[in-house]
Amino acid sequence: MVLFKKVVILGTGLIGGSLGLALKEKRLAGEVLGLSRSRKNALLAKKIGAIGRPVFSLSEVSSADLVILAAPIETIIELGGRISGLLNEDCVVIDVASTKEAVVRNLSNVLPNFLGCHPLTGSENKGIIFARKDLFKGSLCILTPDKNTKSAVLKKVKLLWKKLAVTCVVMPAKKHDQILAFTSHLPHAVAFSLNLAVPDKYLKFCAGSFKDTTRIASSDACLWSQIFLSNPMHLLHAIKSFERNLAGLKSAIESNDQVKLTKILLISNKKDKYKK
Amino acid sequence: MVLFKKVVILGTGLIGGSLGLALKEKRLAGEVLGLSRSRKNALLAKKIGAIGRPVFSLSEVSSADLVILAAPIETIIELGGRISGLLNEDCVVIDVASTKEAVVRNLSNVLPNFLGCHPLTGSENKGIIFARKDLFKGSLCILTPDKNTKSAVLKKVKLLWKKLAVTCVVMPAKKHDQILAFTSHLPHAVAFSLNLAVPDKYLKFCAGSFKDTTRIASSDACLWSQIFLSNPMHLLHAIKSFERNLAGLKSAIESNDQVKLTKILLISNKKDKYKK
Repeated sequence: MVLFKKVVILGTGLIGGSLGLALKEKRLAGEVLGLSRSRKNALLAKKIGAIGRPVFSLSEVSSADLVILAAPIETIIELGGRISGLLNEDCVVIDVASTKEAVVRNLSNVLPNFLGCHPLTGSENKGIIFARKDLFKGSLCILTPDKNTKSAVLKKVKLLWKKLAVTCVVMPAKKHDQILAFTSHLPHAVAFSLNLAVPDKYLKFCAGSFKDTTRIASSDACLWSQIFLSNPMHLLHAIKSFERNLAGLKSAIESNDQVKLTKILLISNKKDKYKK
Repeated sequence: MVLFKKVVILGTGLIGGSLGLALKEKRLAGEVLGLSRSRKNALLAKKIGAIGRPVFSLSEVSSADLVILAAPIETIIELGGRISGLLNEDCVVIDVASTKEAVVRNLSNVLPNFLGCHPLTGSENKGIIFARKDLFKGSLCILTPDKNTKSAVLKKVKLLWKKLAVTCVVMPAKKHDQILAFTSHLPHAVAFSLNLAVPDKYLKFCAGSFKDTTRIASSDACLWSQIFLSNPMHLLHAIKSFERNLAGLKSAIESNDQVKLTKILLISNKKDKYKK
């Protein structure tokens, strides 16, 4: 079932490319075009089948009925502003940024059919070569409408994600940023710091535990500095909560209190049941 | 090639059971016996083929030529003391504890053919049902001889691990505990604290990044409180290093310094090249 006649993906990296592959596999789009900052990357996206053809000018969006903003946050905000005068009046625009308040605040007024989306999937690996048609399958996507969001747009975007086997949850952008500060931005801040804490010469003695805990410390530095800085208040609050808990564990170690320490670790063990 | 005629594994959990499976697969032992705190567990170890038969008394070690202490640290130290008067004079004893100073200090004088070992493998899953014959394959094992260690014992234990496709590294117990505080105990402390930092109701919104970073927070609470408390000085030092690095990241966020923040994340990215 074709939901959109002409889809333009602005940013054919891991997420944009995977969306292209998924849209094409499910035949949800008449055609899928992609624009990338680098010509080479756009051609690669075409080669692996993530897009039908690369485009090299933003003016191509004027005949689209879906535009997907799939770039780092600052670029999403910039591109959203630049295409606002080019779109036809029914063109739906979504983004896939990891924080939503700044994006929604900047784009909701300039793009009449905009809806913020955050598919909770991804990888520490960057770029179109890691794109997969099943990257989204079975995952959650948070949609962050605001007072400007048209119900028809919300409905259509929900249908799009549903066809990609993604479960949608709707909440305000602020709530999204508050939650994701804990469940995504905090673990990234922790993983980056953990890698830094260990002397280089010790790292050859790390086993699976260290590798798993720091897997996401390979994530793209430019992308993640933008994510952190677009959600500072909530992230600093989450880091404080983490520091408090680490201090509790430290205190039990310092006082050699095995009963207290075991109790802390048992409470941590039990958190798993809340994870989906 | 049979290296040992009679092996007794004291503690047939994940590590002891996996060692039993590996010894039997490689035909390195004439027979493999196992003792467990629970009768049910010992019978299960026999059923999955990790041991040839279960034993229910420590006196069985008297005719062994290899005893493997595969229990939590405090139990290893206790068992080591209890078997010291029972062994024949050539019986080699190894342990597999995650910290080595306390174990070596306690057992090196009472067990004449003792060698501390720490295979850098494992799982957040506990118990014999997760035992795998290939758990050790391709991993590192740190051997921690001291002034009492006989060279023949070191040689024989090295050969044992080599036959299990494990690479041995030899270092003093203190050095081991210093390094592993960073590469194993610190990530566990961090993962336990990260789980604790997040409100329960937010956890359904965690994606792969959170799950990977906290995988080891499911690790056994009793085992890990013993590990932490048997290495407090080095672990607290490692936690301090982590806290310093997290504070640096926080400061860049607080001052909205994108250049500095990106630089920090890039340095963290580059740590991967030192991991084996």
